[in-house]
Parts: sequence; C-alpha cells; structure tokens
Amino acid sequence: MFKAPSHQVAGHQARDGKLGPLVDELGRFYKPLQSGERGSQEVAFYEKFCSNTTIPDHIRNFFPIFYGTQLLEASDGSGKHPHLILQDLVSGRVNPSIMDIKIGSRTWPPESPEDYIQKCLQKDRGSTSLPLGFRISGLQVNGGEESASWKPEKKYIKSLTADDVRLVLRKFVSSNVSAESSVQPDCSLASIVYGGSTGILAQLLQLKAWFEEQTVFHFYSCSILFMYEKGSMLEGKKSNAEIKLIDFAHVLDGCGVIDHNFLGGLCSLIKFIREIIDTPSA
Amino acid sequence: MFKAPSHQVAGHQARDGKLGPLVDELGRFYKPLQSGERGSQEVAFYEKFCSNTTIPDHIRNFFPIFYGTQLLEASDGSGKHPHLILQDLVSGRVNPSIMDIKIGSRTWPPESPEDYIQKCLQKDRGSTSLPLGFRISGLQVNGGEESASWKPEKKYIKSLTADDVRLVLRKFVSSNVSAESSVQPDCSLASIVYGGSTGILAQLLQLKAWFEEQTVFHFYSCSILFMYEKGSMLEGKKSNAEIKLIDFAHVLDGCGVIDHNFLGGLCSLIKFIREIIDTPSA
Repeated sequence: MFKAPSHQVAGHQARDGKLGPLVDELGRFYKPLQSGERGSQEVAFYEKFCSNTTIPDHIRNFFPIFYGTQLLEASDGSGKHPHLILQDLVSGRVNPSIMDIKIGSRTWPPESPEDYIQKCLQKDRGSTSLPLGFRISGLQVNGGEESASWKPEKKYIKSLTADDVRLVLRKFVSSNVSAESSVQPDCSLASIVYGGSTGILAQLLQLKAWFEEQTVFHFYSCSILFMYEKGSMLEGKKSNAEIKLIDFAHVLDGCGVIDHNFLGGLCSLIKFIREIIDTPSA
Repeated sequence: MFKAPSHQVAGHQARDGKLGPLVDELGRFYKPLQSGERGSQEVAFYEKFCSNTTIPDHIRNFFPIFYGTQLLEASDGSGKHPHLILQDLVSGRVNPSIMDIKIGSRTWPPESPEDYIQKCLQKDRGSTSLPLGFRISGLQVNGGEESASWKPEKKYIKSLTADDVRLVLRKFVSSNVSAESSVQPDCSLASIVYGGSTGILAQLLQLKAWFEEQTVFHFYSCSILFMYEKGSMLEGKKSNAEIKLIDFAHVLDGCGVIDHNFLGGLCSLIKFIREIIDTPSA
C-alpha cells in the first residue's frame, strides 16, 4: 500500500533503509516528522494555516492539503514514527516535470542557534541563494515517451552558478533537453508553461501580491515546486503548469512584518522567468 | 564658505576636528571620499549612474546630483583630501524634518572579506535590519517655531526594536512629537506626508517598480532619506515631502540580477508606511 514516491527531486528519500516520505494509491503523501523542533513546527504551521480564515482560496491552492498526522511504520524499519498526512502533489500527473526551488537569500530564521546560522550561511554563500535570492534544489524534466528525460545528479545541482541557473530554467521548458551543455535549449514550451494567463509566471505574481501584504508567516528554507506535463503538451494536450509551496519546518510567526526575505527571492525568480518568456531564443 | 551641514542625522560628522562632509552656500555638499575601496566605489557608482541612459528621469530624481570630485581642505585639518561634490539635499529647505533609513536585511555584499561580513552580520542581527529588512539610522523632527523638535541620540537609535520603529515612523508625522514615550503620536500629518499622490508612499512605490526591473546595481548599506517641512505645513503651506537615496560606497554591479535584498527591505518599509496611512489612530 505504501511506497516511496516516484517523482521526488529533493529532500530525504525513503531508499536504502533510510527514513523518507511514503505515498499511497489514494493520493496521500506521508512525510515523517523531522527531529527536534522541525517536526512540531511543521505540524504547527499546517494547523495554523488551515485555521486561518484570512487566507484567500487562490493562495490556499498553492499549498498541499493537510489531513493531519498519523503514526506509521517508518521507511527505515525503525518502527512507528509520526508522519504528516499531506496531499500527494504529483498524484494523477503523468510523467511530471518538476523543479524544486528554495526561496530566500537567507535560509535561517533570526533567532536560530549560532552553529545552525553558520551552517546555513555557508550553504547560502556557497550556492546561488545569496546572489540570486533562491537556489534550485532538484529537478527532473520528463518527456514521457515523446522526448528525452533529464534528472541531473545532486553534485551538479549543488554546484550551479547564476549562469547555470539561467540555463536550467530554460532547459526546464525546452523540447531539446540534453545533459550536454553545448546544446542550446529552444525554450519552445516557455510561452505556455511559464507564460499565459494560467502559466507559472501568472501564479508567481499572485503569490507575490499575497507576500506584499501577509504578515502572519515567515517562510525560511521553504521551496516552490514548478510542475507541468511535457509529454501531455507534446501530444497537444494541456500543460497542467502549477506551482506549490512545500517544506514548512522553518516557518515562524511573521509578528506583523512581511516576509521580505522570501518576497525578495520570489521577485528575483519572477524576473528570471519573465526574461525567458520575453526572449526565449536568447 | 564651507561649513558643517546643519541637518545631518547620520554618518560621519565634521565636528571636533573629525573628517566629515561640508556644504557651501551654493547648495553643494562635499563628501570626503572614504578610505580604501569605499571612496573609489562611490565615485564609480556616481559616474556609472550618470552615464547610464536607461534610468528614467523620475528615478534619477531620487538620487543626489553629482558634480564630480575635488581636492578640498579636509574638515579635520589633515590637509587636502578628495571629496565628492554632490547636491546638498536640504539646501533651500526651511527647518526640514529628516529620517535616514538604511535598507536591506543584509548590509554586506556577497564577496566581502570574512571579518567585514561578520562585523556587518552582527550589526544586522543586533538591529532591526534582519527582522524588518531595514533600520533607522538617524532622524530629526523639526517643527520650526510652531512645534516641538525631536532629535533622539545615537544610543536610542541603535537600540530600536520593531515596535520602536513603528512608533518612530508615527512620531515622524505627528504634531505632538515628544521624547516621552507615554505620549501617543497623533499622526496628524500622515495623510499628507506619507499619503496622497505626491507623498512618500507614492514615491516609494515608484522606486519599488524600478527595483523590480533594474539589474544594473546592487545597493548594499544604502539609505533612503525621508524629508519634509513640518513648520511649513503647520502654516498651511506645502509639505515638500520627498525621498532621496544616499550612500553608495557599497554599490556593486547587479550582473543581470535584481537587488532582491534592497527590494525586500523596501517592500517591508512600504508596508509599515501603508499601515500608518490606513490606521493613523492605531
């Protein structure tokens, strides 16, 4: 009944006897509570988010549905472990292309312990988080039977420069995806996946408008998922392009202040996406 | 001919034999070039900014006019020292009220030396820069002969909490300014100084729109000045509310990326100002 997710591109994975998330056939995603405060903070976030009546529906749709928590047999065989029960975001999708983008130039909350701050700061400085305000944490481009697939290894993802990020964001919406860097991505799907009234840019702009106002949550080390179905598009069907926010183990009370760290990174990402739509052949 | 400025609220001051800026009677402000790379970086910024033809006039107006550099007798008596020749922003203003707000949750550029990063990080964490995305560096509320004045001392400014910042932003546009914290500021000038089609919020929103697009400059440790004339207002005349950007010793090339650090802090400041306009009696 439970199995490891097929389309996970970042984070802890339930493989080789390790603790990781599981999915069932009913479209639910079981995420093991992280140790220490992280697990309880993520539960607290979902509970606060669900009970907050000021969040408009079009924003709520950017978050996974939360069904509660449950003790489940852990994937590492260590016995019962508490899990968050969430919507499986890729359930029902055929060969999804997915990208996980961690938002914010700073991934640590202000009041963190000193060693945690220094650890995060090194990662932020060693990645594109600091210069770009976001970093790509993982991706897969899945063309179904119609087109080549691409799932770069972690080592490549971790070494991405600003120019690489530009390239990866282009490759994500190209029909000629290749692991070889010499092939210029054609961005042939950009106008539909990124652009248009229901594309990813339009959704990011809705999210931005909310972040300019909301002072309830500060989302540290949280990711935006980009998802769409390339195989479906190449058959002339819909792209099902969608963004979702995930990973709320470091969400804090906003205390009446906007999340300027998330918002800044989001605006930077928006600028990158807009440039691809405006100049797909650049 | 040269004298120390009368209305400086932050930064190095030309007093007690120290090196600081000078003004003349023709409306020019002479700023000594800072030591090391800072001085040359500030000159380089002004030269690049002046020669950049893509910057629209309404944005250019938010910056001091740059007239070049000049060797001048330094205010500390140390002999000739190179100075930036800039527009004296308060020249022609009568009893201006001024606030200096340093923008950005991070005041250090990515490639800074390790000791400089740690020094700035401590200041950012020890002030409201980290939680709010900006910090108040100095202010004076000047009521002319009609109203009390208030110029808090450095020690008070350096200890401001998030709640204090809210209070100071309210006091800045109140007729009943007092150093005593028990007096609730009336925000009676907020709708004109902060609000309205030519008020400070409208100007901040113009600046925000530019920062969402421009990828030429990254402004670290740069300040926005708020200025207006309270005495003039209390006599039924114009507020002359205006914002200006100052201090460009840490401006770097944007390398095609927006300044998400400045933009995030700017959006946070905008939210604070908007709340005061919306609920002046809060």
